[in-house]
Amino acid sequence: MSGGINVAILGATGAVGQELLQLLATRQFPLKNLKLLASPRSAGTTINYSGEELEVEAVAEDSFQDVDLVLASAGSSTSKTWAAKAVAAGAVVIDNSSAFRMNPEVPLVVPEINPEAAAKHQGIIANPNCTTILMGVAIYPLHQVQPIKRVVVSTYQSASGAGARAMEEVKTQSQAILAGETPQPEILPYPLAFNLFPHNSPLNEQGYCEEEMKMINETRKIFNAPQLSLSATCVRVPVLRAHSEAINLEFEQPFAVQQARDIIAQAKGVKLVEDWQANYFPMPIDATGKDEVLVGRIRQDLSHPCGLELWLCGDQIRKGAALNAIQIAELLLQENWLKTTNSKVVV
Amino acid sequence: MSGGINVAILGATGAVGQELLQLLATRQFPLKNLKLLASPRSAGTTINYSGEELEVEAVAEDSFQDVDLVLASAGSSTSKTWAAKAVAAGAVVIDNSSAFRMNPEVPLVVPEINPEAAAKHQGIIANPNCTTILMGVAIYPLHQVQPIKRVVVSTYQSASGAGARAMEEVKTQSQAILAGETPQPEILPYPLAFNLFPHNSPLNEQGYCEEEMKMINETRKIFNAPQLSLSATCVRVPVLRAHSEAINLEFEQPFAVQQARDIIAQAKGVKLVEDWQANYFPMPIDATGKDEVLVGRIRQDLSHPCGLELWLCGDQIRKGAALNAIQIAELLLQENWLKTTNSKVVV
Repeated sequence: MSGGINVAILGATGAVGQELLQLLATRQFPLKNLKLLASPRSAGTTINYSGEELEVEAVAEDSFQDVDLVLASAGSSTSKTWAAKAVAAGAVVIDNSSAFRMNPEVPLVVPEINPEAAAKHQGIIANPNCTTILMGVAIYPLHQVQPIKRVVVSTYQSASGAGARAMEEVKTQSQAILAGETPQPEILPYPLAFNLFPHNSPLNEQGYCEEEMKMINETRKIFNAPQLSLSATCVRVPVLRAHSEAINLEFEQPFAVQQARDIIAQAKGVKLVEDWQANYFPMPIDATGKDEVLVGRIRQDLSHPCGLELWLCGDQIRKGAALNAIQIAELLLQENWLKTTNSKVVV
Repeated sequence: MSGGINVAILGATGAVGQELLQLLATRQFPLKNLKLLASPRSAGTTINYSGEELEVEAVAEDSFQDVDLVLASAGSSTSKTWAAKAVAAGAVVIDNSSAFRMNPEVPLVVPEINPEAAAKHQGIIANPNCTTILMGVAIYPLHQVQPIKRVVVSTYQSASGAGARAMEEVKTQSQAILAGETPQPEILPYPLAFNLFPHNSPLNEQGYCEEEMKMINETRKIFNAPQLSLSATCVRVPVLRAHSEAINLEFEQPFAVQQARDIIAQAKGVKLVEDWQANYFPMPIDATGKDEVLVGRIRQDLSHPCGLELWLCGDQIRKGAALNAIQIAELLLQENWLKTTNSKVVV
């Protein structure tokens, strides 16, 4: 590791942390030094990075000395505790948690959508919610051509969105059910194997769960469209990895289906996957491990003259989290936006 | 078996046929004689019905002599072949296939919605598509209070909707994947274990699949609302039994959420399942084997002032097929509508 910048990964042992490491290597991110940080519980373990065994350190007050960039994916409370300290030590933090996303002084960035927002950072840049990123990259190219008026989305979210242990639980639960047993859920609140349930994040007074409100509020912020109407129904399904979404879009004027297909086919970060003859469209197993969000079944909405229906699958750990964070980091380097001379603690 | 009427089940060995038999027994349907019919392939096997071993007969020209009622669930082509012959022999046919559903001379009946339509039958009454029935019983009570203007629905359909063999395939596929193998799908077109895919029924030129068009066209017919706007996205998920649906409703005027909850709580055929404190709502495993469609998460749609969101799970073999057919039969008996003096062959 020579040249480049000093990077720390906070939450290196988690699912997103592991994906971040893999992407830093495969994308040949210009690293000078790489520091792996985690909770004291995970400290001391080693992780192989491009042939080097790196020791995971417990995050501490002096962890951010000489660190240029922190990629944080250790959850909201960890980010709230450490992000300001990292910024105070001179680092820029790209935070994968929800801690700062709706803070008006923190840019919420999807590089395919609002790269310019990253320029205004004051030390922290937030990485959006996974389902929000996947939907955003798929529908923003259409929004640019004709502003979207209303979005109604239903999600099909995989177990891995609830963490690696939830993914394991679905496997062991499936095994037990196939053996005729009745396993008790431990990580997830209800059985997920051969079952599904509405997303179990906390509900607000209107009956929307946090995941749904993230899709609504974060999309408005990323699109810089505070008046955009959105509704979401988020559902956890027994898929191991990659989320799917059925999206109904309403425009002011009719949007020609062929034009929509052409736009998606040429847009960055998405891939048009439609074989109408074979009845083959995006599936989670095909989206797993892919950078692009797979989009298909683009149809004229038969219930509204100005509506379009579309279907997507995307890897929520990759583009929905780690890849988007790395792309933000690459953007900062490319545009020379890493300097934080105007940094202030935003929390 | 004494008193009552002579019933024949066409397709007695299938999943819906089995459910029909169970419901005839548990609901103490007034049977005089019960005849089990199936394809020559299944003929000769015996099925236990309330302690009696009944032999399955191959359906033939003389099968419908002295039969008052045929419950047909052997698929569209079988119904097309035999329904008219049964009617000519003096029987009334309640047909679970799609063969006659959109025939303007054939009533398409959900007893909680349009029982009066059954009175006009000319020998054949069609049982609607399963996802259509489940949605219909859930939203019609609201439609009665204030007409629904537009429906946008996304489905989460279980493997059993594609038949008992598809359900078995999901199990064996899951087992194989858990053992590290890569099984090839045989019944379903793509792997369904730990995966999902858009419903694989044939697509029309507008990109809607047959299942989606059934939801659109059959709902209009059952509701007697030809102008009702509907769009649907149907998705097959790795759930064994019971379908789920995320439904977005638009009305002409705002619909108070509490009123909607009260209506659903009192409506026939549905059960309000909402524990907002415990974040507990309808799930397929809880809907399995239940007569009622479980409805919950009734919310004001944040994207539209006249919108409501709701979520349902229902057993598509029970209320989505067999139970609805039995309820139609019970209605015919109760209203003395079994006579087919005006019968004519409608095909």
